[in-house]
Amino acid sequence: MRDRYETVKKEYESLKALHLTLDMSRGKPGEEQLDLSNPMLEALSSGDFRTEAGADCRNYGGLDGIPEMKRIFADILDVGADEVIVGGNSSLAMMFDCLTACAEYGAGLEGISWRDQGRIKFLCPAPGYDRHFSICEYLRIEMIPVAMKDDGPDMDQVEKLARADPMIKGMWCVPVYSNPTGCVYAPETVRRLARLCPAARDFRLFWDNAYGVHAFAEERPRIPNILRECEEAGCPELPLIFTSLSKVSFAGAAVAAAACSKTNRKAILRRAALETPSGPDKLNQLRHVRFFQNAEGVYRHMEKMAALIRPKFDAALDALDRRLSSRLAGGKSAAMWTKPKGGYFISVYTADGCAARTVALCREAGVVLTPAGAAYPYGLDPKDSHIRLAPTYPAVADLLRAMEVFCVSLELAALEKQIFAIQ
Amino acid sequence: MRDRYETVKKEYESLKALHLTLDMSRGKPGEEQLDLSNPMLEALSSGDFRTEAGADCRNYGGLDGIPEMKRIFADILDVGADEVIVGGNSSLAMMFDCLTACAEYGAGLEGISWRDQGRIKFLCPAPGYDRHFSICEYLRIEMIPVAMKDDGPDMDQVEKLARADPMIKGMWCVPVYSNPTGCVYAPETVRRLARLCPAARDFRLFWDNAYGVHAFAEERPRIPNILRECEEAGCPELPLIFTSLSKVSFAGAAVAAAACSKTNRKAILRRAALETPSGPDKLNQLRHVRFFQNAEGVYRHMEKMAALIRPKFDAALDALDRRLSSRLAGGKSAAMWTKPKGGYFISVYTADGCAARTVALCREAGVVLTPAGAAYPYGLDPKDSHIRLAPTYPAVADLLRAMEVFCVSLELAALEKQIFAIQ
Repeated sequence: MRDRYETVKKEYESLKALHLTLDMSRGKPGEEQLDLSNPMLEALSSGDFRTEAGADCRNYGGLDGIPEMKRIFADILDVGADEVIVGGNSSLAMMFDCLTACAEYGAGLEGISWRDQGRIKFLCPAPGYDRHFSICEYLRIEMIPVAMKDDGPDMDQVEKLARADPMIKGMWCVPVYSNPTGCVYAPETVRRLARLCPAARDFRLFWDNAYGVHAFAEERPRIPNILRECEEAGCPELPLIFTSLSKVSFAGAAVAAAACSKTNRKAILRRAALETPSGPDKLNQLRHVRFFQNAEGVYRHMEKMAALIRPKFDAALDALDRRLSSRLAGGKSAAMWTKPKGGYFISVYTADGCAARTVALCREAGVVLTPAGAAYPYGLDPKDSHIRLAPTYPAVADLLRAMEVFCVSLELAALEKQIFAIQ
Repeated sequence: MRDRYETVKKEYESLKALHLTLDMSRGKPGEEQLDLSNPMLEALSSGDFRTEAGADCRNYGGLDGIPEMKRIFADILDVGADEVIVGGNSSLAMMFDCLTACAEYGAGLEGISWRDQGRIKFLCPAPGYDRHFSICEYLRIEMIPVAMKDDGPDMDQVEKLARADPMIKGMWCVPVYSNPTGCVYAPETVRRLARLCPAARDFRLFWDNAYGVHAFAEERPRIPNILRECEEAGCPELPLIFTSLSKVSFAGAAVAAAACSKTNRKAILRRAALETPSGPDKLNQLRHVRFFQNAEGVYRHMEKMAALIRPKFDAALDALDRRLSSRLAGGKSAAMWTKPKGGYFISVYTADGCAARTVALCREAGVVLTPAGAAYPYGLDPKDSHIRLAPTYPAVADLLRAMEVFCVSLELAALEKQIFAIQ
């Protein structure tokens, strides 16, 4: 083992000597992905600013979006156009706003603010999306981690917790190609969530369907419709569904949307009317409508996107396979990892206690990863074993180099750990 | 007087018989104003998405805006580009967000939330902007009206109140072409505000400079720079400045901005980073940069805008002059009004107790005005005498017709009042 350590150490030092600067920390689209949408930059002409119904997209009004944009989101989310609220450029901003509204002013139209009822708690499947957790931390919402399995959150845990404590007011869900494991919720998971019957009557599922159209290695996944399931279960107010085209067209210059029950819709629009007299950017909605035409247009676009993303995931997974599938001394795997069929991330699990060290070694060698622990509430990975890889942004050649650094760093961290443990 | 009443009544009935549908309720740009910006719809081409520094506006990042957009706002607001935060499409949304942040999480970087200190109060110069007041009402902030004079809020009142009560946490200001009176704060008013020394150390001036470039009948007004004045007075954290291009380019598809001290800036950006990973829409910023080039370009554009708006104000003021400058029986004026040199509104003051009736009569005759009282906290105009007119949206012919209805309604309301008072 000592020999192996010396070999890997040397390998690491020589990679470090290359003074790389590579970034796999965030789920950023690569340039060639963005290029696919370039024609959208000239999708409008100077005389083209009206909806099909004749509304002037250059002026105030239209708080819930233009009809043709609502229809595209309705088709993507499999809901009615009258259940859609088109927002600004960020679905996370919509979630932040909804969560603040519930916390400080009450869920739905007549709720008591969550804050006034006590210390707010949220169920947080982990590993999960770090930005969801940052929002909770800022809003002083106590996060209760729930184990994430291959078919979604551990529903036994979820049911037990949510049914026992009326201060558990909500739960984060990324149902399709979950950030960061890439798993898709099983139909049974979705149905159990709809039938959760939480102790809090003003509980909300924050259903962040960010990656619903982001398949790259299979058919678009079909999961049960959470809005319909909740209606059937007699809890229509439970889900608040969010999605966006941020990684479909242009990150930051795309369009986000929410879908929910009539009551939740009224509550969201009541607040939106206070926030802005102008409503969301309708010209940018029209631009998206002209470019995509309809939901089918989005799906076709995402097939081209898949052709760009798939090779990067293949390359990353291949690198992991080649380098890390062998076992360390003692028969332990140096690492395990997820093999997602869509989305933006791969989750790698090191041996316990090696994630932070691996990320630190990578950084020293010029490869920036998401901080270890970031995918857990309060940044605390209890086993210090999870690392999130985001392979989309670097070009393939850079990605291969970054993966080399990553694998060597991970093995080095594992060997260090074993040697320290023996000595 | 009875004769005059019968005459005016007949006049009103014949106008009503025309079944008009006209709207002077909101400060909406007219179509020909929007047309001025149409070339902006094709200002970007499919290869044009980089800032002068080479940043890709199609991807995540750039939380405080692209440098060239910051420079335009910096020049307009007469501050440094490093003091500007470019936001999304709505300055009101930025104010809403800042106010929520102060109320629930504290002003600046280390403040205690206003809410945790007691019942939050705000000084509200009235008549003022109804949407400011709606936000306060939603956030359960007690509004204290302050008289609005021709040179800004009554500073004796403001100083007395703000220096006595540490729960008075802020104040709304529209310093240039104030909504709805059109007044411009006198230099002395601005200087006294900067030297307010409120009892609350975490007090904030919400400085809504919505109309700074919206002169139509004189040179752009110069008021003292509130940020510099507050620095000199030793209170750099006092002002939060907001502005937008909503009525310069396209309402809802424009760009908003804030400017403030370094500490406030950090606080705003810390929260913004939580709200959205993507930052504001940088492509739309680039579109504005391409179209306007620089602040001079904005000023030139606003001269064309003035040429469209001035005739409408002239027509409205002319109608008031012709019809309402004569005196009623008893020597009382039927009405007085402001004669703004910029902005979007005229304030008309009826005899006491006639505003709501006037607005109701207008509505019955098919002319929609802003609800009477809307310009006062809680919608309560103590004298029931203020009406806001917004003459920009209708075409001139419609505007003349609407003004006819308005003047007749106002006189009818005044005569009704006098006759009731006598009988």
